[in-house]
Amino acid sequence: MPLILFATPSLWEDYRDPLSAALAEAGLAAEVVTEAKNPAAVDYIVYAPTSPLQDFTPFTRTKAVLNLWAGVERIVGNPTLTQPLCRMVDPGLTEGMVEWVTGHVLRHHLGMDRHILNPDRIWDQTCPPLARERKVAMLGLGALGLACARALQALNFPVTGWSRTPKEIDGLPAEHGPEGLDRALAGAEIVVTLLPKTAETENILNARTLALLAPGAAVLNPGRGPLIDDEALLAALDAGQVGHATLDVFRQEPLPQDHPFWAHPRVTVTPHVAADTRPSSSSRVIAENVRRGEAGEPLLHLVDRALGY
Amino acid sequence: MPLILFATPSLWEDYRDPLSAALAEAGLAAEVVTEAKNPAAVDYIVYAPTSPLQDFTPFTRTKAVLNLWAGVERIVGNPTLTQPLCRMVDPGLTEGMVEWVTGHVLRHHLGMDRHILNPDRIWDQTCPPLARERKVAMLGLGALGLACARALQALNFPVTGWSRTPKEIDGLPAEHGPEGLDRALAGAEIVVTLLPKTAETENILNARTLALLAPGAAVLNPGRGPLIDDEALLAALDAGQVGHATLDVFRQEPLPQDHPFWAHPRVTVTPHVAADTRPSSSSRVIAENVRRGEAGEPLLHLVDRALGY
Repeated sequence: MPLILFATPSLWEDYRDPLSAALAEAGLAAEVVTEAKNPAAVDYIVYAPTSPLQDFTPFTRTKAVLNLWAGVERIVGNPTLTQPLCRMVDPGLTEGMVEWVTGHVLRHHLGMDRHILNPDRIWDQTCPPLARERKVAMLGLGALGLACARALQALNFPVTGWSRTPKEIDGLPAEHGPEGLDRALAGAEIVVTLLPKTAETENILNARTLALLAPGAAVLNPGRGPLIDDEALLAALDAGQVGHATLDVFRQEPLPQDHPFWAHPRVTVTPHVAADTRPSSSSRVIAENVRRGEAGEPLLHLVDRALGY
Repeated sequence: MPLILFATPSLWEDYRDPLSAALAEAGLAAEVVTEAKNPAAVDYIVYAPTSPLQDFTPFTRTKAVLNLWAGVERIVGNPTLTQPLCRMVDPGLTEGMVEWVTGHVLRHHLGMDRHILNPDRIWDQTCPPLARERKVAMLGLGALGLACARALQALNFPVTGWSRTPKEIDGLPAEHGPEGLDRALAGAEIVVTLLPKTAETENILNARTLALLAPGAAVLNPGRGPLIDDEALLAALDAGQVGHATLDVFRQEPLPQDHPFWAHPRVTVTPHVAADTRPSSSSRVIAENVRRGEAGEPLLHLVDRALGY
């Protein structure tokens, strides 16, 4: 029976039940502990880089360190870590992002807020246009951006994608580069930013580019805080050029209590929840890797130490 | 150039631009008027049963009366109406319903309201489960119910359908009849009612059936007001058995100002907007029928007077 050390006590409450369910589902009888009295007896370590465990030397028989995060940059350089390291590739992360983006796009599209908050009990039957009449710009066509674009296309939204480098994507008009950006944004009623943060993408939504959107457009940022010039967004909101912003990521997190986004009547703050590693789905990835380790099969998502990811 | 009488002045503002765009799109040069100085010169009548026009006798050369509603029960028995009558089958109606249902399901699923209204600026990163962990019961598997079930399945929600009579539907578990109803509702976290109103479906959500749902479930009714026993729903909301209800249809519409649904903190009222005939898409149906009439082709959605629909 393999011994699994769950080495991140702060996450144990969230993982206790899902991990035990996932191990059972994978047909594994395993013992899971949160403290290793005998490190030399530990077969697998489930790990987050914020864990107090930083010295892997005593874990002499450990077959794999299974990271709970996609990112391994905080652990890959640890010289005591000689055991195989796997990063987390959680299908739940993409699913969660698609749910957040689709839900918040539909909230804006349907004008839900006027029904959620309707103290005067106004029976106003004005209908929104159909999704097919509402241009959406999806900035970023990686795994997350593309999955969200597909979900919105399935609801008939005319989506134009944009990426820094050219991409050919079946059935999705995709622009690229600086000029393509202007074409993607021109007249868009909803823009979603799902780009990595690089020197090129920082402040990609700024006074000039926000002015290209349709008046009253909605801005959704579940990507990275620095993609948006905060001051320019606030000015565009006050001028009415942007009708609403729903923001999940910020330059500083948690968003400071005195940040104007909290107080602005047309900004919704969600606390970096659009895509999170979900204990239920990531536990299945962990269990599958333990099963593979026990069966002598190759591990999933093994990190290449030379490449660093 | 055909002369079209738009015979429902109250809708003219909504239709002026979309109808003219749809006629142009269909390659038709037509004159549209809202008053017929010479009824004998009118080629087509665009009509809603609430129109003041009730005597069709003077329209001697009219080739078709094109109804703006799906329902024709208020006009089909008019003895002066001898011209061909077409009902509206608006693809926008299904699309709008799918958008409303998907949007409001995601609102509940994601727990959006705690972010939309967050006066204390609470940064709470608790994530909802994934859609695949949230059982949905879809009551009604007609065109609308099935389209909504498919859209929710595409987002990974495990949907169980229910209809009065057995239906075999590819890839969708479908229950039927009284016992199947209990199985469809058992443990559902979200229930959507999209049934016609009949003696069998009235009060289908009542004290007994609401008790079958998962505690705190969300109830969405975009179907017909009488599908729900209002008193039982209010009691289940107060007891916490139902966590939220979003209701688009009511026994009396507009919903009376003193109805407890308006005041209840966990009820959202939308004013019968889930599926409306949309001027943009229904104008295209009208234009297509005018095109067919002019080309001598069979009209779409022609009403059979003997059957009454």
